[in-house]
Amino acid sequence: MEKIVATIITIGDELLIGQVIDTNSAWMAQELNKMGVPVIRRVAVGDSWEDIWNTLDEESKKASIILITGGLGPTADDITKPLLCKYFGGNMIMHQPTLDHVTHIFETILKRPMIDRNRKQAEVPDNCRVLKNEKGTAPGMLFEKDGKIFVSLPGVPHEMKGLMKQAVLPFIANHFQTTHIEHRTLLTYGIGESFLAERIANTEEALPAHIKLAYLPNYGLVRLRLTASGFNKEALQTEISSQFEALKKAVGPYLIADKDISMEQIVGNLLIDKNATVSTAESCTGGYIAHLLTKYPGSSVFYTGSIVSYSNDIKQEILQVPSEVIAQKGAVSEATVIEMAKQCLKLMKTDYSIAVSGIMGPDGGTEDKPVGTVWIAVADKKQVKTQRLQLRYDRERNITLTAMNALNFLRMLIVDNP
Amino acid sequence: MEKIVATIITIGDELLIGQVIDTNSAWMAQELNKMGVPVIRRVAVGDSWEDIWNTLDEESKKASIILITGGLGPTADDITKPLLCKYFGGNMIMHQPTLDHVTHIFETILKRPMIDRNRKQAEVPDNCRVLKNEKGTAPGMLFEKDGKIFVSLPGVPHEMKGLMKQAVLPFIANHFQTTHIEHRTLLTYGIGESFLAERIANTEEALPAHIKLAYLPNYGLVRLRLTASGFNKEALQTEISSQFEALKKAVGPYLIADKDISMEQIVGNLLIDKNATVSTAESCTGGYIAHLLTKYPGSSVFYTGSIVSYSNDIKQEILQVPSEVIAQKGAVSEATVIEMAKQCLKLMKTDYSIAVSGIMGPDGGTEDKPVGTVWIAVADKKQVKTQRLQLRYDRERNITLTAMNALNFLRMLIVDNP
Repeated sequence: MEKIVATIITIGDELLIGQVIDTNSAWMAQELNKMGVPVIRRVAVGDSWEDIWNTLDEESKKASIILITGGLGPTADDITKPLLCKYFGGNMIMHQPTLDHVTHIFETILKRPMIDRNRKQAEVPDNCRVLKNEKGTAPGMLFEKDGKIFVSLPGVPHEMKGLMKQAVLPFIANHFQTTHIEHRTLLTYGIGESFLAERIANTEEALPAHIKLAYLPNYGLVRLRLTASGFNKEALQTEISSQFEALKKAVGPYLIADKDISMEQIVGNLLIDKNATVSTAESCTGGYIAHLLTKYPGSSVFYTGSIVSYSNDIKQEILQVPSEVIAQKGAVSEATVIEMAKQCLKLMKTDYSIAVSGIMGPDGGTEDKPVGTVWIAVADKKQVKTQRLQLRYDRERNITLTAMNALNFLRMLIVDNP
Repeated sequence: MEKIVATIITIGDELLIGQVIDTNSAWMAQELNKMGVPVIRRVAVGDSWEDIWNTLDEESKKASIILITGGLGPTADDITKPLLCKYFGGNMIMHQPTLDHVTHIFETILKRPMIDRNRKQAEVPDNCRVLKNEKGTAPGMLFEKDGKIFVSLPGVPHEMKGLMKQAVLPFIANHFQTTHIEHRTLLTYGIGESFLAERIANTEEALPAHIKLAYLPNYGLVRLRLTASGFNKEALQTEISSQFEALKKAVGPYLIADKDISMEQIVGNLLIDKNATVSTAESCTGGYIAHLLTKYPGSSVFYTGSIVSYSNDIKQEILQVPSEVIAQKGAVSEATVIEMAKQCLKLMKTDYSIAVSGIMGPDGGTEDKPVGTVWIAVADKKQVKTQRLQLRYDRERNITLTAMNALNFLRMLIVDNP
């Protein structure tokens, strides 16, 4: 049986001049993988008739499922729809259900008059299956040709996701008999990629050919992912589970999670398990740790809030860090973060607290405290622990690394004091 | 003269299963565009020998510059280097300067013993130009074949960027006579893509063939970007500037910036111009507004801090919102955000404040206040203004849209009260 694979084509000049970052493809690839359809390529092309046409030719030689996003908006640079109409030899017609839907959106949600451009969104090629876009005006379109399917979706992420879930994934599941794919991911912290590879070399070498191991380093974390593919789902699951156990054992003390979750989710889950709360006092990270902890639903159970004390006045007046500590030791010092963590615990009435203060760059460094100097403190009711980092990256990366280190530092405090 | 164009190949299974989002390509495309080299395609392929090989064949038919990232790490799933060696018919040799550099990194920065895998990072094909990676152990490699250049770079973003700036971009500038490209971008807020298109239709139609207009909608903002290409730099600049002025005029009151900056930068710049400060009191955005305002260097001039009052206790005890207001009107109410904004202004001693409270979902809605209900208040010393939003997206998008709306609301308060 031929293996069903997919390719993703994203259309838009904005992708080629680097003005936007493509997050759609990653999400689409995840969903396709879950249902056993590997994505073998992703191609981004500009708003050029010839390039899009040629890419359709090429990609349809490589895969049975061709997913296309972008280029469906109401403006003149969006050429995908007329191109697809011509490519599949159709004629453009007005699609009444879509026109009703667009009219409804304008009348009841947007409460604005419709103009011709909006009405044009309801025109579709007569040889496609129209997919209703519950969240927007541009419908999805599904074409079949020579046993392959081509799906065109709008590039707006939440519209694309809605269409994928409601129409495209169910269609694919019905239409193709797909290979089964299983992934298992674990997270390590505190060990570099090459040392980890040394450590688990025997386990890696012992993997059968149809199970692959990938290393995915990211901000101090290294994810290890096993991927197995085959047609017998149960045998595959048994086999990958046993290999995953061996891998966990080989990783040993560096294992921090045996599924693919984020550091902030690990910390959140630990707090939920302990029925405990945390608050944060952030200087250099400017609210980023608070943002990470509140990104996921349900965080109000364990998170109460943050004092983002970007200025020293806030550190003194709101956080009540003694002014002499800041005057004598500086805002970026062990003494200051200790006070920040203690005050945070007290003011916010939580079981744990995190405090950070540092110099994220590119300016603000001194000889004693160069750019990248960071102090972190974590506290519970019995103790305060501190850590000094010396980072050497750009501002954005320094902020992310500080947040990751601080969250991991809290994770260790929780795990070490059960 | 043939136009020099580039294609970007990113290698790694992690890109195809959606575990990581590719931010490298966008940055590389921006840098190439700045020097007049358009990127015509971006292709992502997995860690598969055959797929990488075929992609090199195909992409080199389409472009003169082929940039490759990823697959150069020290682990077994990284096959790019041996593949390139074979593709260009070379032999692998130990590169002494790279070995010295790797040794130096291990001895003085990482302070760890080197293992064989690390030493292997210094092996390179004997037919490439080795590009020194100041920020890591995997060197860049540049190959020339049939007048085309192929550059292989590590996938770690700051290493890739360092190599691009120090070696690749200067090489390209020397090696090719490149077309000149000019971009001009403006930002609009408060008008949908199709209405904007109606509004500027005449200006758009009057554009000459070598100047293209693109619409880039994102979270309530629509960016309009003009792109002109040609060989006469000065003529091009004069022409695009005049078209840009016409476009600004056509956009009229919806124009919020005439360069490609973010909403938080617009607000930051306004505050810097007025020598004014802002603080934030965030409930539902959980520190995200604070994070946006502190992402850029120099934000400490206008930003003092935030109280992230995720729990009601923090709203009452730290922000000192009267408990009867919360009891009577609820945490998500106009009365509460007014108090939050006023208290924030007072406690943080700033010229302006932003307060937000809402229900981001997926749970927590009621009949009166469904998921997506948000109250925003902005204040200066004379007034407090409020706004109610009813969002209908997922949690992440609701958080981002709330932050964008709140920042724009402050922008309007500042602009309307000069």
